[in-house]
Amino acid sequence: MVEQQHKVAVIGGGSWATAIVKMLSDNIAEKEIFWWMRDADSVCHIAKYKRNPKYLSAVELKVTADHVSTQIKEIIAPAQLVVLCVPAAFLKDALQGINPEDFKGKKIISAIKGIVPDENQIIGDYIHQTFQVPLSDIVVISGPCHAEEVALEKLSYLTIASQDHKLACCFSGLINTRYIKTNISDDIYGTEYGAVLKNIYAIAGGICHGVGFGDNFQAVLISNAIREMSRFVDAIHPISRDINESAYLGDLLVTAYSQFSRNRTFGAMIGKGYTAKSAQLEMNMIAEGYYAVNCIHQINKIYKVNMPIARAVYAVLYEKHAPRIEMKLLAEEIS
Amino acid sequence: MVEQQHKVAVIGGGSWATAIVKMLSDNIAEKEIFWWMRDADSVCHIAKYKRNPKYLSAVELKVTADHVSTQIKEIIAPAQLVVLCVPAAFLKDALQGINPEDFKGKKIISAIKGIVPDENQIIGDYIHQTFQVPLSDIVVISGPCHAEEVALEKLSYLTIASQDHKLACCFSGLINTRYIKTNISDDIYGTEYGAVLKNIYAIAGGICHGVGFGDNFQAVLISNAIREMSRFVDAIHPISRDINESAYLGDLLVTAYSQFSRNRTFGAMIGKGYTAKSAQLEMNMIAEGYYAVNCIHQINKIYKVNMPIARAVYAVLYEKHAPRIEMKLLAEEIS
Repeated sequence: MVEQQHKVAVIGGGSWATAIVKMLSDNIAEKEIFWWMRDADSVCHIAKYKRNPKYLSAVELKVTADHVSTQIKEIIAPAQLVVLCVPAAFLKDALQGINPEDFKGKKIISAIKGIVPDENQIIGDYIHQTFQVPLSDIVVISGPCHAEEVALEKLSYLTIASQDHKLACCFSGLINTRYIKTNISDDIYGTEYGAVLKNIYAIAGGICHGVGFGDNFQAVLISNAIREMSRFVDAIHPISRDINESAYLGDLLVTAYSQFSRNRTFGAMIGKGYTAKSAQLEMNMIAEGYYAVNCIHQINKIYKVNMPIARAVYAVLYEKHAPRIEMKLLAEEIS
Repeated sequence: MVEQQHKVAVIGGGSWATAIVKMLSDNIAEKEIFWWMRDADSVCHIAKYKRNPKYLSAVELKVTADHVSTQIKEIIAPAQLVVLCVPAAFLKDALQGINPEDFKGKKIISAIKGIVPDENQIIGDYIHQTFQVPLSDIVVISGPCHAEEVALEKLSYLTIASQDHKLACCFSGLINTRYIKTNISDDIYGTEYGAVLKNIYAIAGGICHGVGFGDNFQAVLISNAIREMSRFVDAIHPISRDINESAYLGDLLVTAYSQFSRNRTFGAMIGKGYTAKSAQLEMNMIAEGYYAVNCIHQINKIYKVNMPIARAVYAVLYEKHAPRIEMKLLAEEIS
């Protein structure tokens, strides 16, 4: 269990990492927060102006200048809790040079919604196996939560999942604020896979929008998506769960229906004819679902769950099927 | 069972009735369609110009001039199937002068999403008990489907529910077109109550938006709403059903998230401070959920299902609670 002391390292410089720093600094002293990001210019800017120049820059961040750094070992060393918050595709890169000893005795919190490429592992599994962190020392933090609304202090609910209930409650206490409520869960697998799948379904929703389907079809797509998610997570980790809880359905809805969703935007661009590469360049943000759908496709070779929506997105993004034709075929399969 | 002949009467002159006439006329000859509406000017306009002047007026309607009338008995008499499509609040009024004899031997299709005021009955029950139509002769047609997208021929899915499977299939055959797919169901109670509740939840979503909550909260609200719907329909009519099918969750999503939803718009105006009366006047449309929430409140006095969202909407609309305070209280109850 975590002691009274709460030194927290946040790994990542994007909008979600920035939102997490904001939530933490509303609960713990700024000297307890340590923040790593790759970009040296951003580090200097934050140290000087207390604002992230690239993400949520309206937010004034309560951080100590010399606790923001591009040196990951320095940032991790003093912390009891390490929040991982880089795109899954860059996680290996970010943790280069880190060895199991560096994580020893620390609690690792995954705020990543994705799967580690090549390994095809969710973050919890990857950290557990690669860095020998016990599963009970791992926490998953999930939405429904757009970072942009945290910046605006709009009431949001987060799900904190861990096999160690006390640890989940402890971390929950660090991010609960007047605008953040938390749900506690023990389902780290379902929460992580749900968060991964919802990005794929948001891309599907975007593609359908891009090729001209309307709101009626979108509703059918999402009602099929939650059933597909339910089938998959039940196959991967069969425990009793209500897929309509906020961590699963809520997270899917906020991603599939919100204007802030980069995965939906990415899908819409694909539907309108952009290539995946040009859409990513144009958006200047990572659409996690692009990588995730390939990983899920590989993983599902073992489980063989019926996943017509994920399969259609895979076909469009990786097999270069025409979005319009693929979505018409999908429409025949869902109900 | 319905014979080969398919004379269909459509009762109602609004946008959904107009969309149903369009779907029917894509399947059966125009001389088989009979259409009643209250407004004599609209009848004349449709007879002359083949367009409904008030709703979906871009759609050219294939109807025979003397088959459109303000005389309901004339319209019902020749038909084997009668589609009811007026707001629930006006159903009694529309059927004034109609007696059980007039409906004898006919199949009655409810395309109404509401509850008959004072009686607190869903349409199927009301027709069954008031006009002695056997339950097996009743069909319920449900979304997710905005009439506006039918007008645009955007691919949409409808659910056709009846205890008589063959009857459901038969009616399904009358509205299936290249842009309409149908699901068959035997759950007329769940389908009707689901369609009623979703309007209430769309109002709740609108109120939350109106008082300033964001997308993150909206997702939590809707994920709680589908669980509330599940509890209620399971209490009212406990059969095995998947609440995440299009007829339930899909219908909720299209209503709660779409720009076309009048219930959501109504809720947003309430949240911004309009009175219910001025919001209805301003919109010039009926928000079914306004009446429905009162009926559900009465019905739930018997069933006592935990329904914090419906209760909050009732408190705002009928007990004049301040929307902002009521929604803050609701936020404490949901997760």
